[in-house]
Amino acid sequence: MKNSNIPNEVLNKIIEVPKTIIEAPINLLKQLTPKRKKKTSSKIGLPPGSIVYLGEKKVDKVTIKVTEYDEAGAETYEIKSVEEIDPFTDTPQVTWVSVCGLHETEFLKQVGEKFKIHPLVLEDILNTDTRPKIEITDDYLFIVMKLMIFNPEQKILETEQVSFILGKGFLFSFSERTDEIFNPVRDRITSQLGKIRKRGGDYLLYALMDIVVDNYFLALEKTEERIELLDDEVINNPDQSQIQSIYNLRNLLLTIRKSFWPSREIVNQLIKDDSDLLDENIEPYLRDLYDHTIHINETVEQQREITNSLMEIYLSMMSNKMNEVMKVLTVIATIFIPLTFIVGIYGMNFKYMPELEWPWAYFAVWGIMIAVVVGMVVYFRRKNWF
Amino acid sequence: MKNSNIPNEVLNKIIEVPKTIIEAPINLLKQLTPKRKKKTSSKIGLPPGSIVYLGEKKVDKVTIKVTEYDEAGAETYEIKSVEEIDPFTDTPQVTWVSVCGLHETEFLKQVGEKFKIHPLVLEDILNTDTRPKIEITDDYLFIVMKLMIFNPEQKILETEQVSFILGKGFLFSFSERTDEIFNPVRDRITSQLGKIRKRGGDYLLYALMDIVVDNYFLALEKTEERIELLDDEVINNPDQSQIQSIYNLRNLLLTIRKSFWPSREIVNQLIKDDSDLLDENIEPYLRDLYDHTIHINETVEQQREITNSLMEIYLSMMSNKMNEVMKVLTVIATIFIPLTFIVGIYGMNFKYMPELEWPWAYFAVWGIMIAVVVGMVVYFRRKNWF
Amino acid sequence: MKNSNIPNEVLNKIIEVPKTIIEAPINLLKQLTPKRKKKTSSKIGLPPGSIVYLGEKKVDKVTIKVTEYDEAGAETYEIKSVEEIDPFTDTPQVTWVSVCGLHETEFLKQVGEKFKIHPLVLEDILNTDTRPKIEITDDYLFIVMKLMIFNPEQKILETEQVSFILGKGFLFSFSERTDEIFNPVRDRITSQLGKIRKRGGDYLLYALMDIVVDNYFLALEKTEERIELLDDEVINNPDQSQIQSIYNLRNLLLTIRKSFWPSREIVNQLIKDDSDLLDENIEPYLRDLYDHTIHINETVEQQREITNSLMEIYLSMMSNKMNEVMKVLTVIATIFIPLTFIVGIYGMNFKYMPELEWPWAYFAVWGIMIAVVVGMVVYFRRKNWF
Amino acid sequence: MKNSNIPNEVLNKIIEVPKTIIEAPINLLKQLTPKRKKKTSSKIGLPPGSIVYLGEKKVDKVTIKVTEYDEAGAETYEIKSVEEIDPFTDTPQVTWVSVCGLHETEFLKQVGEKFKIHPLVLEDILNTDTRPKIEITDDYLFIVMKLMIFNPEQKILETEQVSFILGKGFLFSFSERTDEIFNPVRDRITSQLGKIRKRGGDYLLYALMDIVVDNYFLALEKTEERIELLDDEVINNPDQSQIQSIYNLRNLLLTIRKSFWPSREIVNQLIKDDSDLLDENIEPYLRDLYDHTIHINETVEQQREITNSLMEIYLSMMSNKMNEVMKVLTVIATIFIPLTFIVGIYGMNFKYMPELEWPWAYFAVWGIMIAVVVGMVVYFRRKNWF
Amino acid sequence: MKNSNIPNEVLNKIIEVPKTIIEAPINLLKQLTPKRKKKTSSKIGLPPGSIVYLGEKKVDKVTIKVTEYDEAGAETYEIKSVEEIDPFTDTPQVTWVSVCGLHETEFLKQVGEKFKIHPLVLEDILNTDTRPKIEITDDYLFIVMKLMIFNPEQKILETEQVSFILGKGFLFSFSERTDEIFNPVRDRITSQLGKIRKRGGDYLLYALMDIVVDNYFLALEKTEERIELLDDEVINNPDQSQIQSIYNLRNLLLTIRKSFWPSREIVNQLIKDDSDLLDENIEPYLRDLYDHTIHINETVEQQREITNSLMEIYLSMMSNKMNEVMKVLTVIATIFIPLTFIVGIYGMNFKYMPELEWPWAYFAVWGIMIAVVVGMVVYFRRKNWF
Repeated sequence: MKNSNIPNEVLNKIIEVPKTIIEAPINLLKQLTPKRKKKTSSKIGLPPGSIVYLGEKKVDKVTIKVTEYDEAGAETYEIKSVEEIDPFTDTPQVTWVSVCGLHETEFLKQVGEKFKIHPLVLEDILNTDTRPKIEITDDYLFIVMKLMIFNPEQKILETEQVSFILGKGFLFSFSERTDEIFNPVRDRITSQLGKIRKRGGDYLLYALMDIVVDNYFLALEKTEERIELLDDEVINNPDQSQIQSIYNLRNLLLTIRKSFWPSREIVNQLIKDDSDLLDENIEPYLRDLYDHTIHINETVEQQREITNSLMEIYLSMMSNKMNEVMKVLTVIATIFIPLTFIVGIYGMNFKYMPELEWPWAYFAVWGIMIAVVVGMVVYFRRKNWF
Repeated sequence: MKNSNIPNEVLNKIIEVPKTIIEAPINLLKQLTPKRKKKTSSKIGLPPGSIVYLGEKKVDKVTIKVTEYDEAGAETYEIKSVEEIDPFTDTPQVTWVSVCGLHETEFLKQVGEKFKIHPLVLEDILNTDTRPKIEITDDYLFIVMKLMIFNPEQKILETEQVSFILGKGFLFSFSERTDEIFNPVRDRITSQLGKIRKRGGDYLLYALMDIVVDNYFLALEKTEERIELLDDEVINNPDQSQIQSIYNLRNLLLTIRKSFWPSREIVNQLIKDDSDLLDENIEPYLRDLYDHTIHINETVEQQREITNSLMEIYLSMMSNKMNEVMKVLTVIATIFIPLTFIVGIYGMNFKYMPELEWPWAYFAVWGIMIAVVVGMVVYFRRKNWF
Repeated sequence: MKNSNIPNEVLNKIIEVPKTIIEAPINLLKQLTPKRKKKTSSKIGLPPGSIVYLGEKKVDKVTIKVTEYDEAGAETYEIKSVEEIDPFTDTPQVTWVSVCGLHETEFLKQVGEKFKIHPLVLEDILNTDTRPKIEITDDYLFIVMKLMIFNPEQKILETEQVSFILGKGFLFSFSERTDEIFNPVRDRITSQLGKIRKRGGDYLLYALMDIVVDNYFLALEKTEERIELLDDEVINNPDQSQIQSIYNLRNLLLTIRKSFWPSREIVNQLIKDDSDLLDENIEPYLRDLYDHTIHINETVEQQREITNSLMEIYLSMMSNKMNEVMKVLTVIATIFIPLTFIVGIYGMNFKYMPELEWPWAYFAVWGIMIAVVVGMVVYFRRKNWF
Repeated sequence: MKNSNIPNEVLNKIIEVPKTIIEAPINLLKQLTPKRKKKTSSKIGLPPGSIVYLGEKKVDKVTIKVTEYDEAGAETYEIKSVEEIDPFTDTPQVTWVSVCGLHETEFLKQVGEKFKIHPLVLEDILNTDTRPKIEITDDYLFIVMKLMIFNPEQKILETEQVSFILGKGFLFSFSERTDEIFNPVRDRITSQLGKIRKRGGDYLLYALMDIVVDNYFLALEKTEERIELLDDEVINNPDQSQIQSIYNLRNLLLTIRKSFWPSREIVNQLIKDDSDLLDENIEPYLRDLYDHTIHINETVEQQREITNSLMEIYLSMMSNKMNEVMKVLTVIATIFIPLTFIVGIYGMNFKYMPELEWPWAYFAVWGIMIAVVVGMVVYFRRKNWF
Repeated sequence: MKNSNIPNEVLNKIIEVPKTIIEAPINLLKQLTPKRKKKTSSKIGLPPGSIVYLGEKKVDKVTIKVTEYDEAGAETYEIKSVEEIDPFTDTPQVTWVSVCGLHETEFLKQVGEKFKIHPLVLEDILNTDTRPKIEITDDYLFIVMKLMIFNPEQKILETEQVSFILGKGFLFSFSERTDEIFNPVRDRITSQLGKIRKRGGDYLLYALMDIVVDNYFLALEKTEERIELLDDEVINNPDQSQIQSIYNLRNLLLTIRKSFWPSREIVNQLIKDDSDLLDENIEPYLRDLYDHTIHINETVEQQREITNSLMEIYLSMMSNKMNEVMKVLTVIATIFIPLTFIVGIYGMNFKYMPELEWPWAYFAVWGIMIAVVVGMVVYFRRKNWF
């Protein structure tokens, strides 16, 4: 807890890094506002199922990667239009179509027609302010989740929406910008690591959702680091700027909670669902994922409670600091006020003041004054006042 | 977060706009009081189902617009009495009767008799303080919702009650003042945009409820803007007037929550209901609406939590500001008190004070005093006290 | 919100009225204590079902009013003993026996024997500290509710217990003091207003419960008025006496909540019950009543939250007020301390002080002092310190 | 509310009495600690069902009273060993064995063997830190409750554990010290008061549980008295010692809640249970008891909320009190500082100070100073600063 | 409560001991961070079921103890590899394999293959950050719990993960470091104490879980001791360092709650489960355990509430302490300021000041000043200001 032996420069450097993380919630809130504004301004009264992209254009070019695999082998292509998917979907292989970038709505419309996806589903994919949800129909499963990824360059936590459509033999994943975080799964497919090639699209869906969930553990590590640093700072060196950090941290935790909270119910619905799309032996994996979602929710709540404690401690430390200043200053004033009174006495101009004539009076006054000071200091010390 | 480089005039103008919004909750509360007073004063002991209008008379003239449509075509008339609806209701077309203004209770009584609506339903339509609710009978669905619309002229958020009665082939909508916000739906009907003409009255009900719900997103954007502005103000320039803004914002959010909260249950009941009035393929739309209601409720709760944080920060900032004033002032006082003591010493009139005779004594005293000041300033600075 | 242009005398008069309302909770609490004390002191160990009156004797004479009616006609008598009810109960008419005053337990014992009421029910009627409840047996329905009525003379809110026993063809209502508040129903019966004469005892029970529930709306109006007045006072003229008003308001709301909360469950049980005593077409009325109970509970919670906000604002306003005092006073002190130092310098008695000899020195010192004052005032003003 | 006209000595005497009650929670907590310590220290790893007494030895001698009764008659004996119970249990009469004092575990072992009680039940009876619970087996009902009794000598609230085992024709009750509080029931049995002699062991169990529950009403009266006294004290004479009383009251209410909370579920389980041990017509009594448990829980919560309000008011009153002191003192200082400056001016030793020569100057200075004082007092008064 | 008669040295010694306990939560948090970091860094994207140890290596050597017993006898061996278990598992005896230390994953892999344990189960055993959970399959029960043990050397509370796999005839227990806390059970097996040798593996599982649960009682005793000490300290000697202790205590209680909370659900699932692995007559034991888990959860909540109260009292005491300092110092200043003014008057150099000539004036001034001091002291005393 005590970092007093760490030089301040080092400490500051450590603290510097995550400070930028903490700027995140405000950026996030700022980004959210225009999005929602667009929605309400442009969409109120529009027919439902209108396929209009409502997010920010985050990448220049939409990329569509197709990974097709079965136990025998795996291939990864990049395609341009939905016609190119055609051959894959009829094969018994698993076809994973990963769409990065959502502003070219034409492709999505074609997917909707070809795979008979409900227009409201397509609307939800494009509206990046959709609440995380699951829709189960006879033909496909539709899942929306929020990804919380740490941007190592800008050192902020960014939310992004990912959606999955799982059908017979195919899985679509939609990312706002890039599907880089899914690369480990693609690598496992190509390098035949683990059982992924032996399993169907449901296992692939699980693997991708697992990555989304695991990224929250990373985000919570970042917030926990920040809590510990703030903790140290607040206790050892309380300062007016920390209140804003605590406020930002609180709002960040609120954002994380809001983004993640529905995930628990999504996974729970997957477990309870007995659709043909999900194999029986996927259940242990989903239950494991479910435990992770509970774990994350509990950790968020715990961090929120710690942050609230931190707020109270901050307020108490600030008031202690102020009190200390006031106390010392008041003590000084208090000591000199009686002294000033004493010297004032002998500044009076009465004709008959016997002391004025005594040769040793001046020195006696000095003696009295020193005695008064010593007495007061001893008294204050004994009362522990400074 | 930092707006310090924005000139104050610009900032004030930005802030000025929503300030009036924030006056809203008090106006709202003021309006609510007389209404409820009327209710209790005039209605306690009256037989239930008494058809008496209990709201404020908000428009001069009651307007009744009828929109009749099927796949083939659509027509919009304005009518005066319930007899004129007669021909429409027997046709296979969908007949949407939109009543704006509620103080002419005669029309409603006729509707009640003709369409066999329960007197309590009519009472609920007229009592503009009804809690949002849904009543499902064999013959009709009755829904009361609160509309929260932003009045761009007065720049306040106003609540208004809207009610819907959905029967076979007809839909009644009741507004307190105007049904302007439903115009986009009427336009979609006349211009054949989207699928609305191919669907029945249930889809029309959904479309109208969707508009009511979407207006809450707009209201929450207004409150969110206000939170962000207050946030900036509180952190950069804390000031006594902000407490009232925060208090008003809190009450506004309480009002929004109370107005909207039951909507979730209303939509949920619609989804669970298997009455003939609702077609099967309306369900995905209702589930989408349900997700929106959850989203709004969560956002309200999040904004309430942020507002509470804001309150704590405000209090902390105000106390910091006060402490700073006190500190600087006390430091000044503390520096001069010892100096005053020193000059007091040499104001004493003792006969034997050797220093008084020394030619350089006066300058020495000045030297001592400057040394004391410098010493204290250095000490205070090192202790970070000012 | 701003009442600054209303003269203080008017404002005070407005405020004066409800101030006495607010004294209510303490009176109420004081009344409750002896009651409960009686219960525990006198009843611990007594056999259950002991018919002992445990409330305060609130009226001198017990009054028993009988109203007998059917579609054809209605009669109201006053009776003395249970034998006189005898003839009525066998008729197909509805017989409403309203007992006002509970301290003559003999009558109740006879009722219990004649109508086979469980002794615990009779005990609950007499114990005016019973929690609101519903008991459903094959032969009768028993309901206890708390009435919250505004006493216009003493200007306080009073709680009173009312109980109902609904059997085949008869309804007993028990009030502590008077059944005046039920007069509108009696009037509707005699004047044949509404459908009440066409309906059975279940509708009568609904009508009476509706009045009990509606009185809570009135009580909440009183508390809301009080909140608004306190709101104005706290923001415009914070003062030490308000804390007690807020505390009393809080406790009053707690009392209202405790008295009303179980009503929701009571009405819900009535709706779910399929006993012969309740006709089928009473259900819409009960559901309407149920909505009212939810509305009242929500309003109580909302008012409690507003009261909590008010508390925080009060604390903040008081601290602002104190800070302002301290600030101005400290500024005055701070300005004069350096001046006192300056005049102290030239009060020193050194032999060699060149300034003392300069003819214009005195006026120069005045000049310096004025410059210091102006400088400090400008600095403080610029820093917005006063 | 206002007790200002009651002389302080009287008030202090009233307050003195319950002050000792309030010391209770700490005593209670102190007692709980060693008990639990014993448990964990001595029992971790011991086989479950080990019959070891884990409470404090509160009485010297274990007393076992047997009351045997049926409609015809009733007898009360005192016995020494379990063999003496033998004859009773085979009779159709109800046999109530009341064991006071638990440290002689031998008797309990014999009971366990003879009546086939599960060892874990015996362990729970002896472990006086057991959470209130109910165990229902085919042969017996086992209930543990916490008794909260007011010790009139030490004026504290004490918790004690009571357990009941109800079997066919017998009821065991176990108290830690004495079963005095059950004497009214024993008296009703011997004096044939009420229906108790006509009913079975289930009614006896109900009668004893009713006494346990009713004692909580008494305890809550004591805490309510204390709240009212504290309320008066805090508002009329806030003082540093009250914080500890509020803290103790809070902890006492926490202890009451923890002791009582499970009782609701216990009674609910009894109502839902359809074992042969409970007669059908006991249900109305149990439901009545259930209502009491809800009432107590609600009252505890209400008192906890009032206590929290009290805390806030205490803090506000203390800060008001401090502010008043500071204000008056600061005003005095502020008035004299300018005066001291004025007299300092004319203490300067300049050669050329025209005023010094004017004969009426001294009196003019006095005039100025009086004017300054009057001006400041008027200003401060007008600003309501003191 | 009052320890004022205990010498400070003794008190400090008592307090000293648990102070180190309280350092625990921070150490714990520090340990948790790197673990989770490892997980996310090294495992995101790895195939699920990867058998990698993710905890800290807490012991040098993995120890595997086998205890095999039936009613006839019991044996304890230490083994090196899974082959050595082979013979035991086929016997009708109960075989308890206790693995201490988890970093040799090879053994676990063999166990997984031999006993057909799902890879995710093995992964959970090795990941020491798993949330407590239960997995029930047809072949085995898998339970993860958090052990909270008091380390008497370092005087801190340490969390450790223990897992159990119960199959037909065998029970695996996995500890991170040592299974010392299970020694009492092993002793009961070897020394044939209690019924453990007569029961199956389910009873052994219960016995081990009981020890895990009982250790929480111990932990809560430690926190309760700490609360009582802090309580004394805060009330008798409030001091800036206590805020950190309260903060640490809060976080420790949060950690305990998070570690223990799922245990309740785990035991509940065991009770509801009707698998062959659990004998019928184990149920009373499990229900007893269930009651303990509720008891612990309630105690944690109660301690958390007391800790929150403690925080408020701390803040109030600190502010009282500060206020007292300020008050006395301000009183001193206030007394001397008027005196300084008086002596200032007679330091003026006016030519015509009649008092200066009066021979007794100097002594009169002294008299006036003494009168002023006495008057102010009396006034302040009467107002109770110091």
